[in-house]
Amino acid sequence: MAELRREPIARRWVVITTDNPKGPSDYLHFKPPYQFPSIEGECPFCLGHEMMTPKETFSIRDEKGNWYVRVVPNKYPFFHIEGDFDKRAEGMYDLMEAIGAHEIVIESADHKQNFATMEAKQIERIIIAYKERILDLEKDRRFQQFLILKNYPGIFNRHPHSHIMAMPVIPRRIDEEIWGTLDYFKRKERCIFCDIIKEETAAKKRVIFETIHFLVFSPFASRYPFEVWIIPKTHSPDFHKIDGEKIGDLAMAIQWLFLSFYKLLSDPPYSIALHTSPVQERFHRDEYHWHIETRLRIGLREGFEWGTGFFVNPTPPEDAAYYLREVGREIMG
Amino acid sequence: MAELRREPIARRWVVITTDNPKGPSDYLHFKPPYQFPSIEGECPFCLGHEMMTPKETFSIRDEKGNWYVRVVPNKYPFFHIEGDFDKRAEGMYDLMEAIGAHEIVIESADHKQNFATMEAKQIERIIIAYKERILDLEKDRRFQQFLILKNYPGIFNRHPHSHIMAMPVIPRRIDEEIWGTLDYFKRKERCIFCDIIKEETAAKKRVIFETIHFLVFSPFASRYPFEVWIIPKTHSPDFHKIDGEKIGDLAMAIQWLFLSFYKLLSDPPYSIALHTSPVQERFHRDEYHWHIETRLRIGLREGFEWGTGFFVNPTPPEDAAYYLREVGREIMG
Repeated sequence: MAELRREPIARRWVVITTDNPKGPSDYLHFKPPYQFPSIEGECPFCLGHEMMTPKETFSIRDEKGNWYVRVVPNKYPFFHIEGDFDKRAEGMYDLMEAIGAHEIVIESADHKQNFATMEAKQIERIIIAYKERILDLEKDRRFQQFLILKNYPGIFNRHPHSHIMAMPVIPRRIDEEIWGTLDYFKRKERCIFCDIIKEETAAKKRVIFETIHFLVFSPFASRYPFEVWIIPKTHSPDFHKIDGEKIGDLAMAIQWLFLSFYKLLSDPPYSIALHTSPVQERFHRDEYHWHIETRLRIGLREGFEWGTGFFVNPTPPEDAAYYLREVGREIMG
Repeated sequence: MAELRREPIARRWVVITTDNPKGPSDYLHFKPPYQFPSIEGECPFCLGHEMMTPKETFSIRDEKGNWYVRVVPNKYPFFHIEGDFDKRAEGMYDLMEAIGAHEIVIESADHKQNFATMEAKQIERIIIAYKERILDLEKDRRFQQFLILKNYPGIFNRHPHSHIMAMPVIPRRIDEEIWGTLDYFKRKERCIFCDIIKEETAAKKRVIFETIHFLVFSPFASRYPFEVWIIPKTHSPDFHKIDGEKIGDLAMAIQWLFLSFYKLLSDPPYSIALHTSPVQERFHRDEYHWHIETRLRIGLREGFEWGTGFFVNPTPPEDAAYYLREVGREIMG
């Protein structure tokens, strides 16, 4: 049999298979689609190739000037920083120029690192880069929403990197969450994410681990096998207001989670998205609660999700959390 | 540069790349992900292997009893037809049993056929099977929504087949369309799909072709390269009320469109979804307009779509329609 579970924020129904659920071994033979040849020799993100990128917007360097992390504008941006919106109609339709920012965080000078192999200190520097770039870009009042996204392995370049996007509109997925958050707040005068944290902490079975400041768990209505969220335990709408102590704590949580994925599923491909409140007073939402969503790219149901907006997940989140806790114990030795 | 175009029904913003847009040749090297080995010898959908499937619910046969099309329950259904919903809470969450129907339309006795190689007459039989199964299943008042979905090639079996699903809830993608349709109707007292048909017919540049009863076009805010919709030109909420003449006409439109894809993009992988109004008086929407959405599975941006609900399409629909019209001319000779 299978269950229909309702994701409590955006209220989407998800089918969770409970009969013969799939475990880690069922996913080991999947390979990420569309592998492009690696471009190691001439990688523009590698140490010594700094001239191959646009001028950097941020970096963290040691006392000799060697960089740990660099941020550069994307050479092939989805959004362009210059120009006017030129909002207009075409017949019955609405359109505008895609104004925004699209930068790349080069996460390491070493082409072969990833979150499972990096030191926590390096992950800290990456988080600092995200924060600093958002603090700078939010001064541009044209931008409503920041997104941090990462595909591993990178689709066009396997050098470890992530994307920071400043968008002039609020994308659908965030909009759905905000709508759900406000609706819940109206009814209960509480943050739905804070309530989820309480619920999960009490129920325990979907919790993978927690740190001082973060809860790491598989959501009740996980859309994907081994979907995991990392969420600050105290209410906080804006990622970029994170302080130094929490950055260190988050870095450890990320390192531990991705090391667990690496061991459990043999270096699986994944995507990460950081959701944070829209910026500028007009759009900012105090009721929102920032968090990181991670998805392993090991599924098969794309045609169904696309056609229906309907997700079928053959690995219950309780199982996912169990397997990830177990592998965590093994890593601890 | 790129444009942000707003999809008029669900109001989702899509980035359409207008600088250096990608054409058909940019997609030719993509292969569908996760190819499973073909299981030709022992395919349960092949002629002579009828005993390998559950008992058929519908078939079309010639006068000697040989079948053209069979419909059978899915051996691995997302929804189960027996049992109770048992709607309940678990802590703050809602869940129920996944009650519904999930049937497979075996589209041909021949393992190697597809919409580009089939006769229009055979496609007609497939459409009749969809219609007849929905007419039968809608008597079960537990079902709110029917969906017809197809992945080509099939993920677990390449024998040509599609899925009919009867769902006890309305999935998100349909729900968004209904919300948009009702909102538009409230403001204008017109069907938004009918207005789109008028707009596209006048603008011409996104139209691929039309038949007596159907318009085939690339939507203004296409989420995917070569996204194409097939829509009845006269207002019609329910697919399953289609009459014999329109079935023949639709079969020709499908044959022509998929032959064009086949020639233009060298037999690309695709997904098809048929969207129709919910059923049962309580959920049915006269304002809705059924249609077929097709998506080629040739893109690369999955991580972004997932993380953001935000689509980036490097092939403007005007280009897609142009290429498909051109290849149509070639096919005509």
